[in-house]
Amino acid sequence: MNLPKGYKYSAIYAGIRKIEKDDLALIVSDTPAHAAAVFTSNRVKAAPVILAQKNLRDSRGLVRAILANAGNANCATRTGERAAAECVRAAAKMIGARPAEILPASTGVIGVELEADRIVKALPALAAGLDPTRFEDAARAILTTDTTEKMAFAAVKGALIAGMTKGSGMIQPRMATTLGFVVTDAQVARAALQTALKRAIAQSYNRISVDGDTSTNDVVAVLANGASGVRPAARAFEAALTEVLASLARQIARDGEGARKLITIEVEGAPTDAAAEKIARAIANSPLVKTAVAGSDPNWGRILSAAGNAGVHFDPRRVDIDFQGMRVCRAGLAAEFSEDQLKRKLDERECGIRFAIRGSSRGRARFWTCDFTEDYIRINASYRT
Amino acid sequence: MNLPKGYKYSAIYAGIRKIEKDDLALIVSDTPAHAAAVFTSNRVKAAPVILAQKNLRDSRGLVRAILANAGNANCATRTGERAAAECVRAAAKMIGARPAEILPASTGVIGVELEADRIVKALPALAAGLDPTRFEDAARAILTTDTTEKMAFAAVKGALIAGMTKGSGMIQPRMATTLGFVVTDAQVARAALQTALKRAIAQSYNRISVDGDTSTNDVVAVLANGASGVRPAARAFEAALTEVLASLARQIARDGEGARKLITIEVEGAPTDAAAEKIARAIANSPLVKTAVAGSDPNWGRILSAAGNAGVHFDPRRVDIDFQGMRVCRAGLAAEFSEDQLKRKLDERECGIRFAIRGSSRGRARFWTCDFTEDYIRINASYRT
Repeated sequence: MNLPKGYKYSAIYAGIRKIEKDDLALIVSDTPAHAAAVFTSNRVKAAPVILAQKNLRDSRGLVRAILANAGNANCATRTGERAAAECVRAAAKMIGARPAEILPASTGVIGVELEADRIVKALPALAAGLDPTRFEDAARAILTTDTTEKMAFAAVKGALIAGMTKGSGMIQPRMATTLGFVVTDAQVARAALQTALKRAIAQSYNRISVDGDTSTNDVVAVLANGASGVRPAARAFEAALTEVLASLARQIARDGEGARKLITIEVEGAPTDAAAEKIARAIANSPLVKTAVAGSDPNWGRILSAAGNAGVHFDPRRVDIDFQGMRVCRAGLAAEFSEDQLKRKLDERECGIRFAIRGSSRGRARFWTCDFTEDYIRINASYRT
Repeated sequence: MNLPKGYKYSAIYAGIRKIEKDDLALIVSDTPAHAAAVFTSNRVKAAPVILAQKNLRDSRGLVRAILANAGNANCATRTGERAAAECVRAAAKMIGARPAEILPASTGVIGVELEADRIVKALPALAAGLDPTRFEDAARAILTTDTTEKMAFAAVKGALIAGMTKGSGMIQPRMATTLGFVVTDAQVARAALQTALKRAIAQSYNRISVDGDTSTNDVVAVLANGASGVRPAARAFEAALTEVLASLARQIARDGEGARKLITIEVEGAPTDAAAEKIARAIANSPLVKTAVAGSDPNWGRILSAAGNAGVHFDPRRVDIDFQGMRVCRAGLAAEFSEDQLKRKLDERECGIRFAIRGSSRGRARFWTCDFTEDYIRINASYRT
């Protein structure tokens, strides 16, 4: 694992979640890093989201550390703001930073009071464990119903980018999804960092959905501390950042609650890119499409029907659909194909859907989701209890 | 069963669906009836939907019969328009009507050619079976994954209204949902009938969702043949029609694929009625809320989070939530309540969610949906095969 210079990581079990698995992560930059972040668009925002937004304003976008806990979202809680502020103050003191330079984040159950004490008490041991190689430990500590840690890496002109994320359910990012933290030792000006993040998010996190629910706690943050001494061109940096974020986003879709298959949806020939995204999102959010994929059922009519609900004007008689690389629909009608062969192909771990509208329009979008299995229900019917 | 005068019903197995269960229904009015109908807003419309719209225009809203089949949606089919027209012509000949006076409807799998021959061959026996008492037989023949037939009745000033419907999956009506047929012997002018239907649909079918998918084949039609000689006041008729349609809609939500519980969502204090409906719909379509109800999990945070995604501006600190009649959230924060007691209450077959925003706004909406169980996945992962 080739990691950016000038960062340390740590993780510990602070007793926030019931099972004894690390639930508190700390990411520290040796020097104040330029930071950019995107947050949930849910009207209901968790206390750490509100505090993180305030801190970023107060510090003018400089961040020394990210403090993230799993097991409790600290949302719709009576003492939430106080608890978040207390943790941030204690963390700042521990690493010798200003409180405004700490970015707090939480994920887990909503509406349960977060006991700040547990985090404050765990901080000395957490800080003592800081190490430049413990990236993966931190990535593991932010998981909830995820079955695996999610990381992605890229290099750009000698600078490095490393990202971690979590997310398995309540996934339909609008601005960002769940938690995602990216660190780089590239030199990037703050405004350029925010621009690159916004554009990269639009092509990555904002293109996945597990269940159509947008969380109250979503945040994706990028820190750039410049420790490599390398200042990549804006376009090259954005491309590398997009690569990292798209990989993380796909890992979330693939690890969707109960999911067995990653579904990639490509839409072409829509009036605009935005219209293409609407169609792709409608297909990705259709429980009927997702259950058909789960059951390896070549029921492409559900894809057509879902697209018809996207609120986009198109002529169904111009639609071609490929399902798992096979021509299932041409000009809006059933194509000749072997159901048995398609069924077998649908047993694979990756599924592709191509939805193309004939004509001169060039709007296109790529979107990722997962299949919808009984396990999603099982996981979510008893998540809290 | 008290049925309106001047209608006959029949049902038969025409061999369209694989299992031998009636799959073809015929509803005949002795005289041409005033008809009003609402159709799917899906961009992809099935052949019978397009033909029914044309017939209604051509006949100036006069209908002699409804011919409906289950087991095949006749949508995205090469020969679909021809097949629908052929069935309509044969049915018209059989009962001595003009083809434009026949309203065709289909429900079932999309993208498979409908064999018109089977329907045409079954018509003589179907017509021979016409009887004023066979309402329930017809109601049973239009079902697909439904577990029970769905009927509702009302009386208005001596005239009678009887409705039947089907629907279990692919349910999120925008204009109408799935199939719904209502007959009345009231005298109602055509324009008044269409107005009453539109207003009644807005409070009934357009207020339910099973899975957020809107079908390609939705139609709800009302026939009024005037055989009772009674001409009820417009308001009284609309109220009775709304009662019938709301009952049918609730029966659909209760019988949602795999559902064990009917969920009634009431939203109050939104800026407008339309905003209230948006919030209610967002809650109703949240898989996380629906799985929590399935698992009797008092996870009210998911209700708050789902509402936050509705695209409606509200202050979370003014939100009160009652879950199954218990105060779980006050002013956006957890209220004191017994989790054990709520868990037990959530085991009941009906579940109530009240979402109220404090303040002076008066926008309200009621919405119905169902819980989300493993059986939904099981049913839909293998519907076609």
